[in-house]
Amino acid sequence: MKIIKDSVHDHIAVDGVARDLLDTPAVQRLRRISQLGTVSLVYPSANHTRFEHSLGVYHIACEALDRLGIEGAQSQRVQAAALLHDVGHGPFSHNLESLTHRRTGRYHDDVHGLLTDGAVGDVLRDHDLDPDAIADLVAGDGRFGQLVSGELDVDRMDYLVRDAHHTGVPYGTIDHGRLIRELVFVDDELVLDEGNVQTAESLLVARALMNPTVYSHSVARIGKAMLRRAAERLLDTPATDTDATALQRMDDYDLIVALRSCAATSEFSRRLDERDLFKRAVWAEIDDVPGGVIEADHESIREFEREIADRAGVDPERVILDVPSRPSMTESSSRVMVNGDMRRLEQQSPLVEALRGAQYSQWRLGVYSPSPVREAVGHAAVSVLGLDIDGALVSEVRNGFDTTLDQFTDRA
Amino acid sequence: MKIIKDSVHDHIAVDGVARDLLDTPAVQRLRRISQLGTVSLVYPSANHTRFEHSLGVYHIACEALDRLGIEGAQSQRVQAAALLHDVGHGPFSHNLESLTHRRTGRYHDDVHGLLTDGAVGDVLRDHDLDPDAIADLVAGDGRFGQLVSGELDVDRMDYLVRDAHHTGVPYGTIDHGRLIRELVFVDDELVLDEGNVQTAESLLVARALMNPTVYSHSVARIGKAMLRRAAERLLDTPATDTDATALQRMDDYDLIVALRSCAATSEFSRRLDERDLFKRAVWAEIDDVPGGVIEADHESIREFEREIADRAGVDPERVILDVPSRPSMTESSSRVMVNGDMRRLEQQSPLVEALRGAQYSQWRLGVYSPSPVREAVGHAAVSVLGLDIDGALVSEVRNGFDTTLDQFTDRA
Amino acid sequence: MKIIKDSVHDHIAVDGVARDLLDTPAVQRLRRISQLGTVSLVYPSANHTRFEHSLGVYHIACEALDRLGIEGAQSQRVQAAALLHDVGHGPFSHNLESLTHRRTGRYHDDVHGLLTDGAVGDVLRDHDLDPDAIADLVAGDGRFGQLVSGELDVDRMDYLVRDAHHTGVPYGTIDHGRLIRELVFVDDELVLDEGNVQTAESLLVARALMNPTVYSHSVARIGKAMLRRAAERLLDTPATDTDATALQRMDDYDLIVALRSCAATSEFSRRLDERDLFKRAVWAEIDDVPGGVIEADHESIREFEREIADRAGVDPERVILDVPSRPSMTESSSRVMVNGDMRRLEQQSPLVEALRGAQYSQWRLGVYSPSPVREAVGHAAVSVLGLDIDGALVSEVRNGFDTTLDQFTDRA
Amino acid sequence: MKIIKDSVHDHIAVDGVARDLLDTPAVQRLRRISQLGTVSLVYPSANHTRFEHSLGVYHIACEALDRLGIEGAQSQRVQAAALLHDVGHGPFSHNLESLTHRRTGRYHDDVHGLLTDGAVGDVLRDHDLDPDAIADLVAGDGRFGQLVSGELDVDRMDYLVRDAHHTGVPYGTIDHGRLIRELVFVDDELVLDEGNVQTAESLLVARALMNPTVYSHSVARIGKAMLRRAAERLLDTPATDTDATALQRMDDYDLIVALRSCAATSEFSRRLDERDLFKRAVWAEIDDVPGGVIEADHESIREFEREIADRAGVDPERVILDVPSRPSMTESSSRVMVNGDMRRLEQQSPLVEALRGAQYSQWRLGVYSPSPVREAVGHAAVSVLGLDIDGALVSEVRNGFDTTLDQFTDRA
Repeated sequence: MKIIKDSVHDHIAVDGVARDLLDTPAVQRLRRISQLGTVSLVYPSANHTRFEHSLGVYHIACEALDRLGIEGAQSQRVQAAALLHDVGHGPFSHNLESLTHRRTGRYHDDVHGLLTDGAVGDVLRDHDLDPDAIADLVAGDGRFGQLVSGELDVDRMDYLVRDAHHTGVPYGTIDHGRLIRELVFVDDELVLDEGNVQTAESLLVARALMNPTVYSHSVARIGKAMLRRAAERLLDTPATDTDATALQRMDDYDLIVALRSCAATSEFSRRLDERDLFKRAVWAEIDDVPGGVIEADHESIREFEREIADRAGVDPERVILDVPSRPSMTESSSRVMVNGDMRRLEQQSPLVEALRGAQYSQWRLGVYSPSPVREAVGHAAVSVLGLDIDGALVSEVRNGFDTTLDQFTDRA
Repeated sequence: MKIIKDSVHDHIAVDGVARDLLDTPAVQRLRRISQLGTVSLVYPSANHTRFEHSLGVYHIACEALDRLGIEGAQSQRVQAAALLHDVGHGPFSHNLESLTHRRTGRYHDDVHGLLTDGAVGDVLRDHDLDPDAIADLVAGDGRFGQLVSGELDVDRMDYLVRDAHHTGVPYGTIDHGRLIRELVFVDDELVLDEGNVQTAESLLVARALMNPTVYSHSVARIGKAMLRRAAERLLDTPATDTDATALQRMDDYDLIVALRSCAATSEFSRRLDERDLFKRAVWAEIDDVPGGVIEADHESIREFEREIADRAGVDPERVILDVPSRPSMTESSSRVMVNGDMRRLEQQSPLVEALRGAQYSQWRLGVYSPSPVREAVGHAAVSVLGLDIDGALVSEVRNGFDTTLDQFTDRA
Repeated sequence: MKIIKDSVHDHIAVDGVARDLLDTPAVQRLRRISQLGTVSLVYPSANHTRFEHSLGVYHIACEALDRLGIEGAQSQRVQAAALLHDVGHGPFSHNLESLTHRRTGRYHDDVHGLLTDGAVGDVLRDHDLDPDAIADLVAGDGRFGQLVSGELDVDRMDYLVRDAHHTGVPYGTIDHGRLIRELVFVDDELVLDEGNVQTAESLLVARALMNPTVYSHSVARIGKAMLRRAAERLLDTPATDTDATALQRMDDYDLIVALRSCAATSEFSRRLDERDLFKRAVWAEIDDVPGGVIEADHESIREFEREIADRAGVDPERVILDVPSRPSMTESSSRVMVNGDMRRLEQQSPLVEALRGAQYSQWRLGVYSPSPVREAVGHAAVSVLGLDIDGALVSEVRNGFDTTLDQFTDRA
Repeated sequence: MKIIKDSVHDHIAVDGVARDLLDTPAVQRLRRISQLGTVSLVYPSANHTRFEHSLGVYHIACEALDRLGIEGAQSQRVQAAALLHDVGHGPFSHNLESLTHRRTGRYHDDVHGLLTDGAVGDVLRDHDLDPDAIADLVAGDGRFGQLVSGELDVDRMDYLVRDAHHTGVPYGTIDHGRLIRELVFVDDELVLDEGNVQTAESLLVARALMNPTVYSHSVARIGKAMLRRAAERLLDTPATDTDATALQRMDDYDLIVALRSCAATSEFSRRLDERDLFKRAVWAEIDDVPGGVIEADHESIREFEREIADRAGVDPERVILDVPSRPSMTESSSRVMVNGDMRRLEQQSPLVEALRGAQYSQWRLGVYSPSPVREAVGHAAVSVLGLDIDGALVSEVRNGFDTTLDQFTDRA
């Protein structure tokens, strides 16, 4: 057994198949994939990696398996899936996922190929485990897949606490020991046992508070949009000979240096390195944005950007339109036993609806551009996108902002 | 300047009038008043006192005054009020407050008398401070009274974090540094500055999660009801020569020993000492309780108890009816700036309404009695109180319970 | 299984014999015995109790048993001993132990009587455990007694971390997870496995740093000396009808109120309640104190006090002479494997000798008295005790002090 | 004023010259320099950077300046120096410092050039600060230089706590608030005020415990030796066109990718990426190593390596000889007031000598090589270096090891 010291869970004991997986290149690579990508531009301590997170998820999975009384090969499968659940991440984790998905059709949790090949596949087979079965668990399939990827999965039990620890924002500090103790299987569904409505709510609330403060902080979003744009240009520069599949297998180091080396991306790279970010030209609430813009596909968004740039008289590469998806709330369908019935949290708790409302009110469309052209771009964007914002507000930039989320380190 | 080491705020520097107040008997007495009373029956680490809490409130008040740019005599007044804000507490803090209020007409924040007399009055006058002005601040009166006792007061900024630290329940871990930084006065109202709807929500959520888990945990409520009943009997035993005013000036030590020594209360005292508590005979939701019971005054409640005991054929001292007030939510009216307007949080945040709903769903009427007579008392209570509960549920005791709140240490 | 939330170890699972012992009056009484006695006069957050500490020791014992592969009845015996190890403590834990030992011949870890009688004895016998065997373990006897009370016992693994947590002084924060993992039995001796010299040193260092800062802080020592003097007077007042055995079974509440109620002790009691403590008239290093004074027995010390009082012209009750024992260092003989040999730490680590030296240099004889007579008492004490201190130093009180230990909250 | 959230100090307020310096490329670059280099191969959470550390040092410097009553331009100078004190670090901080120093003659704290040029120089001059004066402070020169770089500097007050927080090893958790409060200037020397011998000792002890557990953990040392060797090969490969000055201005990203891209270093790079490290062929105590080996210069060490490789019949690039300098202990000369005299800690505390002894006993010469050739290389090294180790010990590899330091994550 190998003991690893972790800043969140203290000692993590790694044994069995997990111990052998630890030494594979695919898992060691996660040391160089930052957990929160550009969030570190806002919270400078948030430099934790997918490697330590994966160890934490493995640790919590072991505790949950122990509580649920699951042993033997089934336990080994879940442990392997927990440790491997993030090997599919590209550089900067979720930051580039929409880009690579568009070009490869794969999200980070589609790992059938990665688990079959190379050292990982060898280790799994040496332990008589089927790589495809593990990949299914990572994708959340089946009874035990819920434990790895679902509304009550061990993934979020680790990341909320870990992200709170490293950002310094306390909201994610859930009581994961409590959560683990209360998990049961009822009719093959993973649920929280009787008397845990509030336990489920606390998980929901933690995410709801971490979301605007950390995960969707406006500066992190600007950084991410710039990084994604730069990566897209990199892919579109034939000389670099980089396609989306290759990009997805890079680590943070490869990508950063690739962006520095390519003429088409070096300015973005300089801006990211020096935290000389674009600023918000528009920051619009969901009710002020036409449905067509919210639903626009990637090509339409690029077209909007070109129109805005054209109207504002600036280089199209200096305009980024950032349209988040409509809010969703995975935890709303987590299940909890109430008086002997299994209920979805949203059936039971008025908080779900309220937090959904809060999410809607926090949703923002952003248009970003360098500071000197921000005002021109803002006016052009309001017009091109058909935003329902008073022109006066936009021209006095400050008023077009929701400053709610910009408490820390905000230069953007 | 005196430096005091605190487990929550690390170093607390005490200076000026606060330094002299620290040495008064009224403040030193707070070392022997537990912060959370019978909550320690549920969370054994929760043995913190009003003394350390008062130091913490003083510390946060100093930070807030510094941020708000308030100096001189006004600052000294608020600092004195912060340190003194709890000197009016009787033994076990809030646990007996309804009892002493009924008999003395005073709540713990009515401290005009206490601040005028004795060493505290002398210290205040030595510093050219008017004891009555300080008492007004403690009562929350006036512009600066809001800082000491109001929706955004420094009191709750300390107690949430401190209670989380000592119980081990993480939900109270708010970001009090953030809160302090964002306080401003607008038209003499203390408000959170622009961009802090979520900051205000986080305070509300922390209280909403701590409430059922800690402050109103069913075992803490049973302990409190037993302690209050015992104290009432003590007051009603002429030989003890104790009236409500004397009771209020006792500390925890005095009261515990007085209960042990008095024949009429020694059985309650033994039960509390040995944690051999009454158990729930009924635990009813608000919708199942007739309005007349919810609004009943103390005399009516005692009368209900006698009727229940009579019908169940048990000694009236073995039945306790515990009817909480209707839920309220102070923080719902905390003020926050939104786009230049001052708004009450409930106008702005859908969370307020949702958490109010959660409070209603968590409200419970309790009837408590010793274990052997629980079933009989339960049936009698349903009938006497006119509760809308299926008899079968009550007789199979377990089903009459909401176990939500009973995760820890629950023997009751 | 019962889950208890603890501020240090988070969740503690209590099962088997421990679960039944938890409900006994002897264990519940520990809720009202403060862990550190008068240390709370220096560190106001240090209000933790022997109850939560006992739970913590039980928790660590379970982890150690698990690591050592000990199961069944032997494991139950050690678990029982861990939970019960402090039931022999009198009020304020160690503060009065020298007094009660002088009069009863028993230290707190002599619990044969307490474990045989009453509910504890019943529970043990119900679980087929011999109370005397458990009491032997509490006394540190036998192979497994080392785990409960020895150089590497689970007692100190809990109290160092817990005392650090509650005082706010970080020095006690040892890595108890590491310690537990490295325990092995070699030839029936409990030792730290190969490669743990530094682990053993870290335990030693933690105690060496906590000692002067917390456990022997001068103000805590003055408070303790006053409390002990008051308790001695209480025992010597026939009207109170209290003997040492009765005193030892009191809890903190009983004693405090008894001291308040007895005319002979009420002034001490008032001083302790109001933190209006005696002050140091003399504070002398070990090299300046004649051997005869260091070795003096209780009667001689009382005689010295009377002589000092007589010479200073003050009431003998206003002079306290406080002579600590010569320094000792339990951990110096903890055993650790080095290259296949079992060695005592002091054979292996130069730190042991150095810390022993530091202990000698921190040793202080104290003479305490009320502030107004401090100077007179100081001069008298130097003369009566034959201290090797320059008179000038004593008369300019300040210079007679080692202020090293007086950083916090020091009014004495 | 800009508020930055930090996982160690919570909120850090950045103002004045520091605020403008924050935005310079030289400071932003520190986001990409890991604080502890290859220590993250042992402690996977230790991914913190020089950027957050620099903010922490700035924060503590502000507190110290406040305590010492230093304001105005002098304060701004120290604040600037605190924020800039690490801009001279090359990739992986200290890991490559001996290499770059050998070739450039500069250590990381020689920053005169860096502070004069570019954006940093501009900002300093805009604030009427002389870049050379700031660089002198960074080098520890002058009265205030002691605060930035000396035995009691703010640098170590941050890094001990921060490294403890991120590794999870508690030993570095000093009480930096206490240290700051007790700093005074006496005769232009920065000293700890009267009564702080133990405070000084606690700093010394923290370093002494962190050193073998974290900073000099054998696996971190192997990783560092491999990284240094790879970097040296990179410099010696003409095609890469990289000299030592260029290397020093790289960040971690540049270097890692450069090592991957260069044929002469790609195998080292693969090993580091996959944590497929060399292992210890020899691990020898100081008394077993001839003085000539300990004092050998770089060229002699390379010559030893070639001889060892030759004798073992392996490629010279597969042998690394790692000879640490003789132990030193900066804190031993920290100054503390004792009875009105300024004394060096080593004059006052027996701990200094003991910890120095411990350092000697922990010193190890290492010879590292790939696993398959370890035994052959071990025998050859003992012979070539003239080590006083029994051949049998070396051939049974395990016995040649001191496993003391290898508790965690050790694959090497």
